[in-house]
Amino acid sequence: MAKDFTTRAENYSEWYNTLVERADLAENSAVRGCMVIKPYGYAIWEKMHDALDKMFKETGHQNAYFPLFIPKSYFEKEAEHVEGFAKECAVVTHHRLKPKADGTAGLEPDPDARLDEELIVRPTSETIIWDTYRHWIESWRDLPILCNQWANVVRWEMRTRMFLRTAEFLWQEGHTAHATAEEAIEETKRMLEVYATFAQDFMAIPVVKGVKSPNERFAGALDTYCIEAMMQDGKALQAGTSHFLGQNFAKAFDVKFVSKENKQEYVWATSWGVSTRLMGALIMTHSDDNGLVLPPALAPLQVVIIPIGKGDAKLKIDQTATNLIENLKQNGISVKYDDRTEYSMGWKCNEYEFKGVPIRIVLGMRDLEAGKIEVARRDTMTKELIDLTDAASHIAALLKDIQQNLFNTALARREARTMRVDTWEEFLVRIEQGGFLLAHWDGTAETEEKIKELTKATIRCIPLDAPLEEGKCVLTGKKSSKRVIFARSY
Amino acid sequence: MAKDFTTRAENYSEWYNTLVERADLAENSAVRGCMVIKPYGYAIWEKMHDALDKMFKETGHQNAYFPLFIPKSYFEKEAEHVEGFAKECAVVTHHRLKPKADGTAGLEPDPDARLDEELIVRPTSETIIWDTYRHWIESWRDLPILCNQWANVVRWEMRTRMFLRTAEFLWQEGHTAHATAEEAIEETKRMLEVYATFAQDFMAIPVVKGVKSPNERFAGALDTYCIEAMMQDGKALQAGTSHFLGQNFAKAFDVKFVSKENKQEYVWATSWGVSTRLMGALIMTHSDDNGLVLPPALAPLQVVIIPIGKGDAKLKIDQTATNLIENLKQNGISVKYDDRTEYSMGWKCNEYEFKGVPIRIVLGMRDLEAGKIEVARRDTMTKELIDLTDAASHIAALLKDIQQNLFNTALARREARTMRVDTWEEFLVRIEQGGFLLAHWDGTAETEEKIKELTKATIRCIPLDAPLEEGKCVLTGKKSSKRVIFARSY
Repeated sequence: MAKDFTTRAENYSEWYNTLVERADLAENSAVRGCMVIKPYGYAIWEKMHDALDKMFKETGHQNAYFPLFIPKSYFEKEAEHVEGFAKECAVVTHHRLKPKADGTAGLEPDPDARLDEELIVRPTSETIIWDTYRHWIESWRDLPILCNQWANVVRWEMRTRMFLRTAEFLWQEGHTAHATAEEAIEETKRMLEVYATFAQDFMAIPVVKGVKSPNERFAGALDTYCIEAMMQDGKALQAGTSHFLGQNFAKAFDVKFVSKENKQEYVWATSWGVSTRLMGALIMTHSDDNGLVLPPALAPLQVVIIPIGKGDAKLKIDQTATNLIENLKQNGISVKYDDRTEYSMGWKCNEYEFKGVPIRIVLGMRDLEAGKIEVARRDTMTKELIDLTDAASHIAALLKDIQQNLFNTALARREARTMRVDTWEEFLVRIEQGGFLLAHWDGTAETEEKIKELTKATIRCIPLDAPLEEGKCVLTGKKSSKRVIFARSY
Repeated sequence: MAKDFTTRAENYSEWYNTLVERADLAENSAVRGCMVIKPYGYAIWEKMHDALDKMFKETGHQNAYFPLFIPKSYFEKEAEHVEGFAKECAVVTHHRLKPKADGTAGLEPDPDARLDEELIVRPTSETIIWDTYRHWIESWRDLPILCNQWANVVRWEMRTRMFLRTAEFLWQEGHTAHATAEEAIEETKRMLEVYATFAQDFMAIPVVKGVKSPNERFAGALDTYCIEAMMQDGKALQAGTSHFLGQNFAKAFDVKFVSKENKQEYVWATSWGVSTRLMGALIMTHSDDNGLVLPPALAPLQVVIIPIGKGDAKLKIDQTATNLIENLKQNGISVKYDDRTEYSMGWKCNEYEFKGVPIRIVLGMRDLEAGKIEVARRDTMTKELIDLTDAASHIAALLKDIQQNLFNTALARREARTMRVDTWEEFLVRIEQGGFLLAHWDGTAETEEKIKELTKATIRCIPLDAPLEEGKCVLTGKKSSKRVIFARSY
């Protein structure tokens, strides 16, 4: 166990915060609620970015960039949307600072530079984008529009936590425009699949695909699809959402098109996004009391090689390392040789272990003379001696195995903590233990709110694959046809 | 010549604005001074991003991300810096909107949600980054720090123009920290070289490497290095800057380190950046009265293939196209097959010509039967019939040739419009004709300002390769040892 490091059992929340800082992922900045994403953390986000961006392009999307600022009046045009975001937004009111009028040192906003209309730092870009789409769309030939934007957004959250909930965060937001509701719904579901595939294949996180209850929908959406993951403490984390927006934004911004039948119709919309919140999900799904654990598909560094030895021995080890590195790189594996002398072997091993590098190789003369190298895997914390001759292909296979093992472990953990609950008494006991509770719900917002009030649990989603099943609402006893997932969440 | 399209000779400025919109690069948004970068324009920026990012990483830099907001007090800590940026910045004063107090419809900033300290939307990030570096740096072992950030920044320019000068723009900003002045100066120059190489090899733009006069330095820098390019109208455009910041920010934010000699010393800094302004430089260097012209290295689409024919002929053409596309892709060439029937051949040819696709191929049965295909290159607007058999390698060579030709043309144009000027009378005549004037300058800020006042020309840079040469200042007749470049600029 890493020294001076809080374990998950001792204090899960402190474990998370300490891990994020000590593994050089991020730190709180001097600006309230804003974090600094450090190079190592950012390198993971770049890997996520690249993988997702490729998947977006393969599904026909293009990137574009829309303004950071949204005029206040745009905000007001979609009633539910403004309700959802007005309470926590950064408002720009001036465009100049000047020396303080009272003669004391320092600057203040110049009253002569007050904006006629306040600008909101985007919390999401539906309004400014739909205002733009009005100029782009005239006829069915202009549809669909399949745009994505990588950007920063700001939501003035009162309680923040690195990656999970920050005032500023990085994300992508897809905004598509379609001629029919069917096409838009198909797109909404397609992007949900993209997110689920990404979560499973890259993040090694099993997710439940589902649809939100009306209470938990995005402000302005007709339907919000989501992927939900379970963290190690049994709490749920919403890892991505895909919204069917109907014609709400087209109506608010008057975006019509001439159909093939030569009729003026409002355009159908979707939006979908994932954010740096995924970093939080990644950390909390795999990491342990020894620090960060990274799936090889997203690890900035997959293999680290540390030599032991001096003088002639070191020269021989260098030679072996050079060949091995070359072979690993040919296999598309990222690798670093750390032969710095200002740090000890032990310090280095701890460092890479804490930072979650999937495979650590220690190269020493004794092993080399026997034609072996020592390979330690981060996920299981086990070591083995492998033959030097086919080391590269062995390591490539090992990385695949680590990726799969992390997924399997997370899946087994989730399954162990997912249970069917049929009575309110059991619900009250189980919810304290964490996990996903599959329970019947009568479909009303009142019941959902009551349950939240009593237990802090919300409906995470109605799983897309939930079988039809006659049952009774766990709180009210009223009729229900499907189980939904209740959980406490991040 | 493209229809309804202003020529450069008629109105250069209108030509530029129309081209940016009609080629689907960008458009003005409803937010004052902010543009929307459209998918085609953004795809070019992505190519720039990817090429630069690779070069930054190859020179040892890592990406990170720092907050969008900068507390007002940080801004005030470096005197010249605040002077440079306080007059044009977006100031956030509130974190909530509420229904208007007077009962009328709409929202207003909630007086109860006024921030204790105003936040400035970053115009550049030296202050917030050096405040962060204070926590990262203790000893010489922590140096150098070589960070880069890809981000949006805001400068409230009063006169804006798409890509060239916008209130919000996208850029990268490198911020490095070093133990010695020498190392920092070396880094400053290294990044200038990276920018110059990028401009020449990717953008096909020849640039002059130089150093700014004190008047034109970055606010807070000891020295600003720059690359300057000449646009087709003879005006200069600063395409990238690299600043040696000395210990100014380290002193303002108290960033010290313990040296190898065990002494407390202030850290040395550099910063360097290029922005979406490069898009403006790219457009204005190569484009013509038929629209955009793109160097193949940055073209989102390098080759477009348009078939002519119906029925059986079309099937045969499809087959030929499929093979050709396969071969081109194997050569790493991006290609699109446009066989849409809702648009005519003529419309398509105009469209791709206007969008600057380097090579356009028209596939018709008559040529194919003769074993030929028709290849049109955008830079020279010439067509040739080439053999189908080795078409892919011919096209690969052609793309290289186009890249080189664009660079050569731009270089020849610059050389033709760069002249040595020795008298004030000649200066006054020449400056009206545009171009770079190589003239002697007495080295004083007063003279530089006087010349600017009289002619609107500024010193673009003191070229790094300017030979030592005895001379007299073109305005004052005082002694000078080097010629500098004067020009009007964007």
